[in-house]
Amino acid sequence: MRDHFEIRDGDLAGRIGRLTVPRAGVTVETPALLPVVNPNIDTISPAKLESEFGAEILITNSYIIKKNDHLREEALDVGLHEMLDFDGAIMTDSGSFQLAEYGEIDTTTAEILQFQHDIGTDIATPVDIPTPPDVDREQAEEDLKITKQAIADAEAVDTGEMLVNAPVQGSTYPDLREEAGRHAYESALDVFPVGAVVPMMNAYRYGDMVDAVAAAKRGLGVDAPVHLFGAGHPMMLALAVALGCDLFDSAAYALYARDGRYLTVRGTEHLEDLEYLPCTCPICTEYSPDELRAKGEKTQEKLLAEHNLHVTFAELRRIKQAIRDGDLMELVEERARSHPAMLDGYRALLDHVDQLEREDPASKGAFFYVSNESAHRPEVARHHARMDRLTAEGNVLLTEGGIPSGDEFDDAWRVVPPFGPFPRALSETYPLTAEVPERLDRDAYEQAARGVARLVEENPDATFTLAHGDWPESALSAVPDTVAVESLEEVTEKLAETAKSDASTGAEDE
Amino acid sequence: MRDHFEIRDGDLAGRIGRLTVPRAGVTVETPALLPVVNPNIDTISPAKLESEFGAEILITNSYIIKKNDHLREEALDVGLHEMLDFDGAIMTDSGSFQLAEYGEIDTTTAEILQFQHDIGTDIATPVDIPTPPDVDREQAEEDLKITKQAIADAEAVDTGEMLVNAPVQGSTYPDLREEAGRHAYESALDVFPVGAVVPMMNAYRYGDMVDAVAAAKRGLGVDAPVHLFGAGHPMMLALAVALGCDLFDSAAYALYARDGRYLTVRGTEHLEDLEYLPCTCPICTEYSPDELRAKGEKTQEKLLAEHNLHVTFAELRRIKQAIRDGDLMELVEERARSHPAMLDGYRALLDHVDQLEREDPASKGAFFYVSNESAHRPEVARHHARMDRLTAEGNVLLTEGGIPSGDEFDDAWRVVPPFGPFPRALSETYPLTAEVPERLDRDAYEQAARGVARLVEENPDATFTLAHGDWPESALSAVPDTVAVESLEEVTEKLAETAKSDASTGAEDE
Repeated sequence: MRDHFEIRDGDLAGRIGRLTVPRAGVTVETPALLPVVNPNIDTISPAKLESEFGAEILITNSYIIKKNDHLREEALDVGLHEMLDFDGAIMTDSGSFQLAEYGEIDTTTAEILQFQHDIGTDIATPVDIPTPPDVDREQAEEDLKITKQAIADAEAVDTGEMLVNAPVQGSTYPDLREEAGRHAYESALDVFPVGAVVPMMNAYRYGDMVDAVAAAKRGLGVDAPVHLFGAGHPMMLALAVALGCDLFDSAAYALYARDGRYLTVRGTEHLEDLEYLPCTCPICTEYSPDELRAKGEKTQEKLLAEHNLHVTFAELRRIKQAIRDGDLMELVEERARSHPAMLDGYRALLDHVDQLEREDPASKGAFFYVSNESAHRPEVARHHARMDRLTAEGNVLLTEGGIPSGDEFDDAWRVVPPFGPFPRALSETYPLTAEVPERLDRDAYEQAARGVARLVEENPDATFTLAHGDWPESALSAVPDTVAVESLEEVTEKLAETAKSDASTGAEDE
Repeated sequence: MRDHFEIRDGDLAGRIGRLTVPRAGVTVETPALLPVVNPNIDTISPAKLESEFGAEILITNSYIIKKNDHLREEALDVGLHEMLDFDGAIMTDSGSFQLAEYGEIDTTTAEILQFQHDIGTDIATPVDIPTPPDVDREQAEEDLKITKQAIADAEAVDTGEMLVNAPVQGSTYPDLREEAGRHAYESALDVFPVGAVVPMMNAYRYGDMVDAVAAAKRGLGVDAPVHLFGAGHPMMLALAVALGCDLFDSAAYALYARDGRYLTVRGTEHLEDLEYLPCTCPICTEYSPDELRAKGEKTQEKLLAEHNLHVTFAELRRIKQAIRDGDLMELVEERARSHPAMLDGYRALLDHVDQLEREDPASKGAFFYVSNESAHRPEVARHHARMDRLTAEGNVLLTEGGIPSGDEFDDAWRVVPPFGPFPRALSETYPLTAEVPERLDRDAYEQAARGVARLVEENPDATFTLAHGDWPESALSAVPDTVAVESLEEVTEKLAETAKSDASTGAEDE
């Protein structure tokens, strides 16, 4: 049990949590964005990040500070908080990024952790190896050994109240990511960055990112606060939160602003291409694109950085509200339509439906069916898995229509795509109250047919009739042969005839 | 040709246009939002609508003004523009809404048009009959006769420079909507409101709304400026613009604010339910939900109305930018995931793919495949329709792989889901440059198979081999029997063997 991290609410594998950072004397609400502050460049001051954007935590780089005489002396002298003028929590990176970029750095985990401690870091980072995607398995294993050693070295340093990151590597090998997650979780360290996903995101490989994070999460305990290192584009935050990531850092807001790039939840635009500013933020409601372009380089950069941060923080608020409302999946569904690579990420997420299902709350406010993918949500898998608790006896009608008046059937259950059959008594329980479109797709019908098959499997002694409202052939062929299948129209006609012949029989009896 | 409306750019059936309003001496860029200004209630002043939100046009109700002694005298005395303090264009409604709500009004088209003219209206409205959905056909026809008479009455009034609306009614009967559209278009009037869609939107019947608008548009000429009367929720604006609507009016921003409702592009929230404000607007970045709730009723209403307007105007800017970029369909795809009813609306839009295809530009920047529905976009239908221009001769390989080196085939075409086959020379032309996810759905493969079938049909003398990369059975079964179907793997093996045997034959010749 990690007692510095408390989970307050959840949806899918995402959660609203509280990360207690003892050295800073603050509690950070997660999911949280850590703006990256470059100690050499002052795009937006940390004080403004705190007061105007509500940043509770930021991240800067201890290796850059250590390598610069002036910064090092100041940091050692007054401490990071005073140097940056920031009261929230401060995480520092260790130089691992520089190691990955330039091949070597002249520090060690023990040394850089001590330095981070000396300058007043609240959450520190050892020197791990960010293994890129697609390397040989041998290299991934070799690198992982070094990262594990860095974790052991970090455990050996007396860091007092300072929290320490235990990075999770393993490249694109899910089993290595899972093992790395388990190893990190079993250490005495505190926060768990999933590393080296930036090359995947830069290459728009969101499917691979999802697989890597899902694997790491399988190794980590549910109570582990997880940092998706280097991820801060608002487009992918909902997806990453749905996987169970809690912390994100954004250098993008400032780096992109520097070359005129404008973030949106649907992707990245270039200011030079915009004729309209598709945003409500204070910058975009005050200026036109031409007015922004007419600003001097520095002012334009600052204003774009502010826009970029507004968009990113608002998306985090949207995600938190979605977790509260239990409709995070609906938000992920929307974001999946911003780019084919995001759809890949979403479809990859659904490949891990069993993993999601274990953490997803059993009851929420509403289930909105908004795409073919909705048929493959955790709620549908859960309904199918729970068929083993539903007992059907005798001659059972499974129908999309109303209850028949005759006595041909011992029981009449409802059938609702995408879930399948259930006793009428469950009609008002989540997710069977789902709202679905009139124009339903075959994925929904096929999933309902699979539900029928599961029910039949669990109740071999009962006999079933399925009365469906014009299901497609692909769904009907998934219904077991032992089920009598009739269209709703046929059943209605037949029941009417039976009623008539009952009535005439009755008349003869008189 | 309507010379007061000029179309500058288009995507799907949506367009950016310029509506010249001679009496106001202004040109309004469309798609445009007309905030509804209630002359009795000053939520946000028209001057502020103009200066802070960029409103170029608004709408108010001439019937309410006429019925109120004080308002009538002032409007007749100083004119609407001075009375409201607004320099943009002013459209006025006629009392038709009151007629629909309360059953009768005491005015006529001739009288109210004259009154609108007298108070300085720029775009006036006759007294039409907003026929609700699902009425008997007889009633819909009867009502439509009255609306047509109102249009004739309006044509007879000398309105000078004032533009006049020609409403399109017809309830839920597509043929009546189309006929009404044609009749209105053939009149001498200027702007074309599609009426009585509010009851459909209130009941979340977006599929029916799409069918009604699509039918009206079939009757109206492409150059007709179309007003979707009573529609202003930001969630559905992209869909409505994609259908070819140009003007929208929003009373929602103020009415919703009055009872604490908070608009988003994903639907409507209640302020009381929000723990976070999921928006970047100046209100939502300045206040927390608790701070907003702590405001007095009037202030809270005003702030919520401002938020609601920011969201709505920003969505219109986003839509216009999407038209410029040629990715309006991608925006519609996203908005379709906000509610099952919006998915119905989007799927209904795709039912009208042939109608959309006629106006959709042939070339754009990018085609993003982001859902099963993407397989049914106009570009795919167009590619299939154009198979009649593609000539295939001899023995043709259609392949998802590379060009074979042997001489077994006379030609090797590419096959790309969801489009189907095309000669390699077309590879770099829109939409064949589409970006698709790795995890492709069967809709994409099945559409590609339909493309193959169309090519075969157009080229009965050629013979075809399809080399596919693991297509699903549902797609393979749509490939004509005359096509030799092999998996990419099989073809590669076979070609390698042929090359080997050719080589060995060559060796024997030496």
